[in-house]
Parts: sequence; structure tokens; C-alpha cells
Amino acid sequence: MKTKSLDDLFQDMLKDVYYAERKILKALPKMARGAQSPELRAAFEKHADETQIQIERLQQVFELIGKPARGKTCPAIEGIIEEGEEILESFGGTDAVDAGLVATAQAVEHYEIARYGTMCRWAEMLGQKQASKLLRETLAEEEATDKTLTEIAETSVNQAALKAA
Amino acid sequence: MKTKSLDDLFQDMLKDVYYAERKILKALPKMARGAQSPELRAAFEKHADETQIQIERLQQVFELIGKPARGKTCPAIEGIIEEGEEILESFGGTDAVDAGLVATAQAVEHYEIARYGTMCRWAEMLGQKQASKLLRETLAEEEATDKTLTEIAETSVNQAALKAA
Repeated sequence: MKTKSLDDLFQDMLKDVYYAERKILKALPKMARGAQSPELRAAFEKHADETQIQIERLQQVFELIGKPARGKTCPAIEGIIEEGEEILESFGGTDAVDAGLVATAQAVEHYEIARYGTMCRWAEMLGQKQASKLLRETLAEEEATDKTLTEIAETSVNQAALKAA
Repeated sequence: MKTKSLDDLFQDMLKDVYYAERKILKALPKMARGAQSPELRAAFEKHADETQIQIERLQQVFELIGKPARGKTCPAIEGIIEEGEEILESFGGTDAVDAGLVATAQAVEHYEIARYGTMCRWAEMLGQKQASKLLRETLAEEEATDKTLTEIAETSVNQAALKAA
């Protein structure tokens, strides 16, 4: 008889997100290099710094639950990043590339918002208050990044893409 | 010289989401069958009906822009659904499965929220008011589904998972 519980789910998702964040950290410099707008490039660079801190927070969460920090392949983030690579391949060097990169980055953010939202709540239910607090800090950052990306889309990159061709 | 623009990005994303919605329509009955709670099963069944309507709306959008309704492999949704299958494999039949299925479904919803949010805005900028209106209807449904899933998690399935093992 199987006796898996919330604790197992939480550990599974923690490993999934730990893998995902490290993938994102590797993808961000490529996205920054592909961006035409200096504003978007700066946003990707800033988010890479944030991602580094988010990875360290995950390591603290692993420590708090007494488990080694270990990732587990996350097919979702692999897929989202693959779509970003397709954007760079199909739209690289065109005035439309930035709008496509913003859309990719927002798909990444929304994946993380879903995952951190779930993990915050699970950590709380498991009595891991400090872990929940750390995860909530990251959740707030991901939500703020999503908003910044919308602003960049609205104020510049969507217009640039519209005028192209 | 490449001259791709917002119009190309929009068509690309429309094909991506058209593929994704049909994948989701296929995945939902499996998730419903795996769910332990009748409430969660009913939510998945209801969302399958909604997804059918969302697919029809996308077909209308293709018609409005004068293009054939055609999908394009969406690695992101493949990845997210693969994670759902892993949940069913690892947690199927346990009291924790529902909490894992809710988390998967919320990752799906957030992917769609990101994509429909972007497409609404792009359609509007491209002067496709009717298309934008249709996409906004779906966006509102996805956001409502995400909220319903949070409620189900809070009122029943997370507690069931916590008590297990």
C-alpha cells in the first residue's frame, strides 16, 4: 500500500523548481543577448541576479527540511525555454524579437508563480513557517517581474514589433 | 533581410495555443479519472467542456484573421502535461494525488493566462477587436478556473494529503 503524502509532494516540487531556476539562470543571458531594447536587456540582467538569490533561498529551504539540495528534471521549464529558443531562431534580429522574448519570459514567470504559490501554501500546512516565508519572498519577486515585463511590452516593444515589416 | 512583425508573432502563438488546448482536452479526462475527490473530478469535467468552447473560439479567431486553423507543437504544454503524468504515476491511488493534480492544473492555467494575456493585447494592437474580445473571454475563464482550483485545494484536497501517510 502506498502512503505518499503532502510532504512527498512538497519535496518533489522543490526539486522540480530547483532544477527550473538553474535552467532559467542559464537561459537569461541568451535572452539578454537576443534583446534589441536596452531596457529589456537590463530587465533580463536584473532578473538573472534575482534568480541567483532565489536559488540560494531554495537551498535554504532544502536545509530547513533537512534534505540535500537536489534538482529533478522539470519538463515544463524545458518546454517553455525551448519556445524561447524558437523565438530567437525565427525572430532574432527583427524588430519583433523583443515582443516575443517578453512573451516567453512571462510564460516562465507564470510557471513560477503557479509553483511558488502552491509551495508557499504546502510549506505552511507542513508547519515549515520559515520555508514558507522564503518561498513567499520569491513569489512576490516573480509577480513583480511579470508586471515589469507587461510595462516594457506596453511602453515600447509591442509598438516596435507593430511598426516592423 | 528579415521583416517579421507582430502579426507573425500573433499567428505563431495562436497556433501554439491551438495545439495546447487540444492537448489539454485530451489530458483532462485522464486527470478526472485519477482524481479521488468527486469535487475535483467534477471541476476537471467542467473544464473539459469549457476547453471545447475555447477551441471553437480559437477557430473563430483563425477565421477572423483569414488563416486556416492549424496547430504547432507546443513544447511547454507537453512538458506541463508530462509532469501531470508523473504525478499520476508516483501518487496515483494515494490521498496525496489530488493535491498534486490541482498543482498540475494550476500550472496549465497559468501557462494559458500568460498566453491569452499576451494574445489579447497583440490582437487589439493589430486592430483585431473581435478576436481580442474572444481571447479575453477565454482569459477570464482561465483565471476563474485557477481561483476554483485554489478553493478546492484550500477546502479539501490539501488537508487530505496532509493527513495521509
